[in-house]
Amino acid sequence: MSDAARGRDVAVQRVAVLGTGLVGGSIGLALTARGVDVHGHDRDASRLARAKELGAVTLTFDVLEDAVAGVDLVIVAVPVSAVAEVASAALDAGASLVTDVGSVKGPVVRDIEVARPDLASRFIGGHPMAGSEQEGVDGARADLFVGATWVLTPTASTDERAYTQLHEFVRSLGAEVVTITPEHHDVLVALVSHVPQLAASTLMDVATAHEEEHRTLLRLAAGGFRDMTRIAAGHPGIWPDILGANREAVLDALDAYLAALQSARDLVAGDDRSGLLSLLERARSARRSLPVGAAIANDLVELRIPVTDRPGVLAEVTTLAGRLGVNVADVEIAHSLEGGAGVVVLVVAADGAGALEAGLHDLGYATSRNALP
Amino acid sequence: MSDAARGRDVAVQRVAVLGTGLVGGSIGLALTARGVDVHGHDRDASRLARAKELGAVTLTFDVLEDAVAGVDLVIVAVPVSAVAEVASAALDAGASLVTDVGSVKGPVVRDIEVARPDLASRFIGGHPMAGSEQEGVDGARADLFVGATWVLTPTASTDERAYTQLHEFVRSLGAEVVTITPEHHDVLVALVSHVPQLAASTLMDVATAHEEEHRTLLRLAAGGFRDMTRIAAGHPGIWPDILGANREAVLDALDAYLAALQSARDLVAGDDRSGLLSLLERARSARRSLPVGAAIANDLVELRIPVTDRPGVLAEVTTLAGRLGVNVADVEIAHSLEGGAGVVVLVVAADGAGALEAGLHDLGYATSRNALP
Repeated sequence: MSDAARGRDVAVQRVAVLGTGLVGGSIGLALTARGVDVHGHDRDASRLARAKELGAVTLTFDVLEDAVAGVDLVIVAVPVSAVAEVASAALDAGASLVTDVGSVKGPVVRDIEVARPDLASRFIGGHPMAGSEQEGVDGARADLFVGATWVLTPTASTDERAYTQLHEFVRSLGAEVVTITPEHHDVLVALVSHVPQLAASTLMDVATAHEEEHRTLLRLAAGGFRDMTRIAAGHPGIWPDILGANREAVLDALDAYLAALQSARDLVAGDDRSGLLSLLERARSARRSLPVGAAIANDLVELRIPVTDRPGVLAEVTTLAGRLGVNVADVEIAHSLEGGAGVVVLVVAADGAGALEAGLHDLGYATSRNALP
Repeated sequence: MSDAARGRDVAVQRVAVLGTGLVGGSIGLALTARGVDVHGHDRDASRLARAKELGAVTLTFDVLEDAVAGVDLVIVAVPVSAVAEVASAALDAGASLVTDVGSVKGPVVRDIEVARPDLASRFIGGHPMAGSEQEGVDGARADLFVGATWVLTPTASTDERAYTQLHEFVRSLGAEVVTITPEHHDVLVALVSHVPQLAASTLMDVATAHEEEHRTLLRLAAGGFRDMTRIAAGHPGIWPDILGANREAVLDALDAYLAALQSARDLVAGDDRSGLLSLLERARSARRSLPVGAAIANDLVELRIPVTDRPGVLAEVTTLAGRLGVNVADVEIAHSLEGGAGVVVLVVAADGAGALEAGLHDLGYATSRNALP
């Protein structure tokens, strides 16, 4: 069966990158390195020129609509507060597939679905969980995403073909795809990114504010403190936007953190050594279970899921896998869903296949499993 | 002038290491590598045997008093709660110079001064600001202290000769000495070590407690979260002791952190973007001013400070330098203080010499400055 017949689109040949900063530039570098045409557009002409100079884009465009014309994929890599507007403009210009790389997904996806109900099926929110203390396109690296987790957030209205194409594209950059709902994404990044950023910056601020002779304190700051405050050295400009867009989830996570710190304070004040030891041991155990990379396990199995004309099947199936932490190495539609019945084929890590099958059965799907050679 | 005539003791030839874990073992490895005899003692015989096997000690002793006999320097590398007792035993056994490597100094130094008023002049608290996620002597490394800051906390009762000898010893391990009071040390490490440890462990605990499907959260944890929680993976066993011994300073620092986090929460809740940006920019600026290493500046000057028979001169002069963040590369007593008048010679980084001179003048000292070739 050919790729096309299996519902697999051929690899992208031409991509528009809107916003040529660190992340947009890194995607561009990865693409130009393998001969893909990259159309660059940026509201800052000098940044765009620099991206061209560094080889992150092959052609530059002053006008967004010109950059987008005729490309297979549009990547919106602008600050969170501008994503919905830029993505909508790309959709209006006829783009067949648009994604973004912003740190907040729920409000952005909702805004686009409200503003462009007819076109939103071609927009899929994305968020590569990779960054750098560097700023701007000069910090861009072609291998920034290798081994990184890249979240995708399709919804019930997402075009199935668009999703499989984007999944394949992200995998081609060396990243592992985790598919979850926009709302679940926002709750998780509040916990693992937004609150940690506030915690690190606040810790750095407190340490220096409470020490008259800063130089002495700074000389005592060993590796642990340096590690903890490293992200405080990053680009501050992006954060007010992100924290504003994800306010509710950030406040929930921050309140949980404040309550837990207050409990830790009570343990110290009461000299509750066994309580402190329990906390530290729990945390150590959790920290040690952080996967070293996002590498797909070696053993893969294929799950085949017959589907009928239920809307949003692919989003439902893949977000279930994401929620269960099951690694999806590949996703295909065995034949078009447009006519109704079809088969979704997921290639997943063997150790999570059982849990995923059970979850799919709960949702009313049948599955069959094949070992892969 | 010979080293001896300048009040400089010859380098230590025989050292006792009491407690052969990570830090004691690392000191041992650094010493045996340059041919120093290292007498090892540990209440855990198998750990001691392992230290011998790894070459961290040259001779093992079952009895503390035997290990201490005839050595130039005793290093107490046991948990904080046991330091005062072990150091007192070493002093009782006739040790001429005893130091420790514990994370809390005030209560330990006070306990020894109260318990052994006649011998406490030979004990100087110490704290190398270096560690490892490794545990025990198997994680020991001869170069653990190269470029690290090593705090010394002499007091008014400290023997001046003992201090200069210990300063030189610490420098010989590749570390930079920062001399401050025991109480100032404890306030600073609460800010840069003890509260960060609690903050990291609590953050890790909250992140996993509030996410039903841990695997998904863990896959989203990118570099920033990993950096911030790295110390949560460390050895929990040492912390209840440390937090108990430094309770007051830890509670003060923790309360400051809680208040600052609450203020940050208010900024998020009120969508105060300029307030958030100010916080993040302040923190970035402070983080970027963290020195990369503790390296001494290239330009050094010599300050000569004539002194009379004022007690605790060396502790006063060196803790002033420590408090001002002035790097002391070398310290000597130009001739014995025992007879009354003498000259303390400090070799300091040129960029801090002016501030140190001003501080010394405020304390009633005269100074003269010589450029070093």
